[in-house]
Parts: sequence; structure tokens; C-alpha cells
Amino acid sequence: MSERLTAIYHVTADAASIAARARAIAVEQSVEMPLEGIDDPYVLDHIVGRVAHIAEVAPGRYEVRIALATATIAADPGQLFNMLFGNTSIQDGVDLVDVDLPATLRDAFPGPNLGIAGLRALTGATARALTSGALKPQGLPPAGLAALAARMAAGGIDLIKDDHGLADQPYSPFTRRVDAVMDALDTTAARTGHRTHYLPSLSGNLDAMRAQLRHAIGRGVSAVLIAPIIAGIPSFATLVREFPTIGFMTHPTLSGIARIAPPLFYGKLFRLLGADAVVYPNHGGRFGYTQATCFALAAAARAPWGGIKPCLPVPAGGMTQARIPEMLDFYGPDTIVLIGGALLATRERLTAEVAEFVAAVARHPFA
Amino acid sequence: MSERLTAIYHVTADAASIAARARAIAVEQSVEMPLEGIDDPYVLDHIVGRVAHIAEVAPGRYEVRIALATATIAADPGQLFNMLFGNTSIQDGVDLVDVDLPATLRDAFPGPNLGIAGLRALTGATARALTSGALKPQGLPPAGLAALAARMAAGGIDLIKDDHGLADQPYSPFTRRVDAVMDALDTTAARTGHRTHYLPSLSGNLDAMRAQLRHAIGRGVSAVLIAPIIAGIPSFATLVREFPTIGFMTHPTLSGIARIAPPLFYGKLFRLLGADAVVYPNHGGRFGYTQATCFALAAAARAPWGGIKPCLPVPAGGMTQARIPEMLDFYGPDTIVLIGGALLATRERLTAEVAEFVAAVARHPFA
Repeated sequence: MSERLTAIYHVTADAASIAARARAIAVEQSVEMPLEGIDDPYVLDHIVGRVAHIAEVAPGRYEVRIALATATIAADPGQLFNMLFGNTSIQDGVDLVDVDLPATLRDAFPGPNLGIAGLRALTGATARALTSGALKPQGLPPAGLAALAARMAAGGIDLIKDDHGLADQPYSPFTRRVDAVMDALDTTAARTGHRTHYLPSLSGNLDAMRAQLRHAIGRGVSAVLIAPIIAGIPSFATLVREFPTIGFMTHPTLSGIARIAPPLFYGKLFRLLGADAVVYPNHGGRFGYTQATCFALAAAARAPWGGIKPCLPVPAGGMTQARIPEMLDFYGPDTIVLIGGALLATRERLTAEVAEFVAAVARHPFA
Repeated sequence: MSERLTAIYHVTADAASIAARARAIAVEQSVEMPLEGIDDPYVLDHIVGRVAHIAEVAPGRYEVRIALATATIAADPGQLFNMLFGNTSIQDGVDLVDVDLPATLRDAFPGPNLGIAGLRALTGATARALTSGALKPQGLPPAGLAALAARMAAGGIDLIKDDHGLADQPYSPFTRRVDAVMDALDTTAARTGHRTHYLPSLSGNLDAMRAQLRHAIGRGVSAVLIAPIIAGIPSFATLVREFPTIGFMTHPTLSGIARIAPPLFYGKLFRLLGADAVVYPNHGGRFGYTQATCFALAAAARAPWGGIKPCLPVPAGGMTQARIPEMLDFYGPDTIVLIGGALLATRERLTAEVAEFVAAVARHPFA
């Protein structure tokens, strides 16, 4: 039998039907046709998916492990998702919960360019958690956004990411925004000695994103924000390879489909394709992830995984200054604490609030 | 107030909380920060989303209409999805069910290159439904796939699409597959006088897909298959614009997230970005769509919509020859009847079965 990966699904079914359902998934995610129509022995032996294991994990809920031929993926990032969950994603009662990749397939993908060590080297944060703010609201002109960035930088924050809604709109074109924000951050750094890094949000097609990256790098940008499900999985993976010195923070917008388990989707697959830091909705914010999901996601992002560098979790989505100690206790120091709107809502106190945020992270005693 | 589109959500909530929930969606899909942190009057007046209407549509379920500024989208295909449903897609209990676009925004997108009339002109099917088969299983070499294509073409089928799992794998590289299949179809057409059109499946990043299209066009291909959620929404829209004489059939793989209503997702948004024909899981097959969903999807794909050409529905996913009359009664003649695995499973009777399929479609009396 040829080399296989293991895709792990949770399936709602009854005891009488789960074996047939599992076989149907194995066919759907491989040849997608009745096996009686196939007489080619290579296809039957080396391509057709195989049910490796079935176990009931809760009443009426089964874990199904399918062995899928890695030859169907051929190290193509889009095919990875297509073969893991493509048509099955449209079927009811089935979630993709994990995947076990053979080392050869795993190593065919780049993983993060910088990883945790690279982001620590970039920011000079050797042991503590990293701090991040968000640049918004969209609709502000470049000068307005740059002024906010300067005020956050003056408080000593490590990173400022664009809101994922900031694209290339006429009221704030990408190049003018990058120029204005980087000018503001350069000026602040010259005054305070602290370098805040700006992660502008890429948008448009692959060519547009390449041009945006080149412009940003020319202005001194070291890391960017990208939304893989908006940009497209192949475009994300392509940019990671083409810009190997740049850090990529991923945003989950449009990906919250909850049919791929978040620890796998963000913590493992986004990391595999090159996420150095992965934004996701933290428990207790505006989104519905549980504590257990968030913990598993962070653990997956950082876990040793062959030569694939570890990735920093970025729990976000309605975080506030009051939650800093609790978040640091929960996630530990290998984390980016991102506070977006709650900081900006402090208005004239923005720099002081950022300074207190930065101090709270710096002084937090890790157990 | 600046130009707005209307995004329509269905939200699970109770009467006491729905107003706040609707306002939260309006904020999430526009500025994504507390309004008290915003003092810029342009942002407050022209960018912040507004709740336009709330109505209970079922016990505990509300229709919420949000007016979103079209300026945030700036005619960017990725931004269209990002602003309609980005972060809200990650929240529980909310579906995007429809969208009403002002004509200026609608007309900023290309719509289908060929549309229904173009696909009819291409195939010579002036009034009847179109017929399509699928080329699979993956794992077969180009010669094996070409032989299957020749046998389907000999039965007089209009279209043969690649299985969406066929990418650029070593066992069947795209260019060799296209060459082999087009050679086989040319030979068959010379003998029978009937031209079957082959729709190869694009894969990889934007550059790879462009190269695949150029190669395919050089071999006489007039239409292709693309999976927008795998390829990336911006890449799909870019290819439609760059290859304006080519038809695009979309495949739903990985898009079956059921949080965007299928009639909107496939019938309206895929069409807006350029789908000439849209594959989706028909009711009663291997997937869970209802009859009502399928009917609404087909209606949306074909409905008059300014200058956006209509698009052919392609109900699929486990269709059989026995269902042809029922499908034609249900969908009418502006449809592509796609029978994939069930035809191939007839093995040595493949050409005869295709001929019967084609005859059944041709003789079907429409009411």
C-alpha cells in the first residue's frame, strides 16, 4: 500500500450504519465514485481511501480514521484541504477533527518562516508574552491610523496589526497607509528607543498581495497579516515561500465554519502552511470557542512537529485589559496578547493604557 | 449616508437580546470596535454598519437586515465575502441568507463570461438541458482517463468535467491529461461529428492556474472547472477577468459550510464572480440539501440581475440515470444534468448508457 495520511472525523450515526458511513467517507475523499466502476489495480490498491478505525466516542457519535493516499495531494496546499475535507464538508453530521501526516508530506510544506524564536528575536521579547494592538476603525484615512499607531507605540507595544477589514479602499490605500504608519513608528522609535512592528493586512489577488509585500518590505515591515480563507489557501502558502524572511500572522475571518476542529484548522494546518502567529477567537469574548478548544489550539500551534517551527497563539476577539493576568496564567508566555477595540476605546488615555498593558504583561509572574 | 448594501442574516436569539445582537453584527461586519472609541464623523456616518430591520421569522429565530457601506468592499472579491460574513461566520447561531447589492457594486463584478446563452452556443444545445459526465477516478493515468472520455463522447454527451480531485498529481499531470483527453475527443468528433467539450480542473496557485488555462486553451478547451474555496475567491475572480472567452464551472468542495445559504453562496455570489455553471449537491443524493434549497439555488442562478448573465445550475452528487425525468421536470431545460460515478460504474456499457442518457434528455417533454 502506498504512503497514507490519517484523517480523523467525528461522525453522527448509529451502530448499524457507521461502517457504511465510514466507507462512504473513504470513497468521497479519494476516488468519489462507486468502487464497482474501478478495475485499475493501482487505483484500487494505492488511491482508494481505507477505513482504518472506528470507535464510538459518545452516544451516536463515532471517531472514524481514514487512511488517504498522500499521492493525491502531491504537496499542493489546496489539495491538502480538498482531499482532507472537500466534499465531506458539505455533508451533514461530520467534522474533521485531526490529521496525522507522514513526515514526508509534512516536510513538503514550509511551516512558519520565523516561528516563535523568530518573532521573539524580532521584538526583543526573550521570555515574556508579546503584546499587540489593532489598527482600526476602517474608514479612517492613513494619517488618522498613523496617529493611533504612534500613540500605541509610545506606550511600548510590540506589535500593531491592521484590522482585517483594512484592505485597499480608496479612503486608505495600502501603500499610503503603510507609508504613513511606518513614518509614525520610525519617528516614535527614534524618540523612545522602542521599535513597534506594524503588520499591515494583505488583500486582493496574489499579484496584488505580492506588490503589497514588496512595498511594505521596502518601508521596513517585517511581518504581515493575512486571512487565508479570504486570500485563498494557495496564495497564502505561495507568499510564505516567496518571502522567507517575513513573518505571517493569520486571521480567521470567513473560516469559522466549525466543521474543521479549530485546534487542527488554525493550530496545525495554518501553521503547516506558514503561520508564525495565528489569531483566533478566545473563550469569553465575542465568539463561542470553549476554554478546552482554545487550550488545545494553543498546544497544537506550539507542539514539536518535526522541522516545522512552532507558532504563537494570538487569542483575540473582544479581549480587555482586565483579562491580562488570567490570559497569561492560562496560555503562558509563548503567546501574543492582542487587545484591539478595548484599547482604542480609551481614547485620550490610549498611550497610558498601552503602557499599563505592556507593564502588566512584563511583570506577570509565570508559575 | 453613503451607498449601502443590505446583508440579511438569520439569527438565533430571544426577544430581549435580538436588538443588541443585531447591533453587534452591524459593528462586527464594519468597524469591529466599540463605537465609543470612534470620533471620526466620516466613519460614524459612512462606515459603521446599521441595523435596517429586524423581524421574527420563527420562534427564537430572527431575520436581521444590516446596511453595510459598499466603500469598505471597494469592488474587491475577497472583501465582498470578508465584509458580508467574515468574523460573523465564526459566531454561533447566525447564518448569512441573502444580500441585496446596489447596482453600482453589482456591476463592479464581472458575472459569467458566457452565461446560459454562451454555454448553449458552445454546445449547440439550443433548447434542451445539457448533459455532462465526470472524468474519474483519480489515480488513472492520462491514457486511461482519455479512453473513458472517448467512450463517453461516443455516446454523444455535451460536457465532460474532471473530478474535482484531479489536480496536477504525478500520476496524471494537468498538461498531459489535457493533451490526452483533447486528442481523444478530437478523434471521436472527427468520427461522429459530435463535439464533446472537456472541462479540466484547475489547481495550484494563481500562476499555476493561469499556465494551466493557457495550455488548455492552446489545446482547444473552451471551459474549465474551478473550486473557488480551494483556489481562493480572488484567484477565481481574477481568472474570469483574464480569460473572458472561457466558461467557468464552479465546484463546491470545501465550501459546504452551511452558514451561508446555498442559494446565495452558489446561485448568487459564485455567479457574481463569474460562474457560468455552478455544481452543487442535488437533493436526494449523497448530500443533505432539501428540495426547496435546490429550487431556490437554481432560481437564483438564472434570475435576471442587471447586466450579470444568468448561470446554469448543475445539480450533482450521486445522480443516476433513473432520476433524469424527475430532475428535468424539477429543474426545466436551463440545467446541466451531471451524472458522474453512476455512468462510469456501467463499465463496458458506458457508451450505450451515455447514449441513452443523452436520448432521455433530448426527448424529455417540458411542460
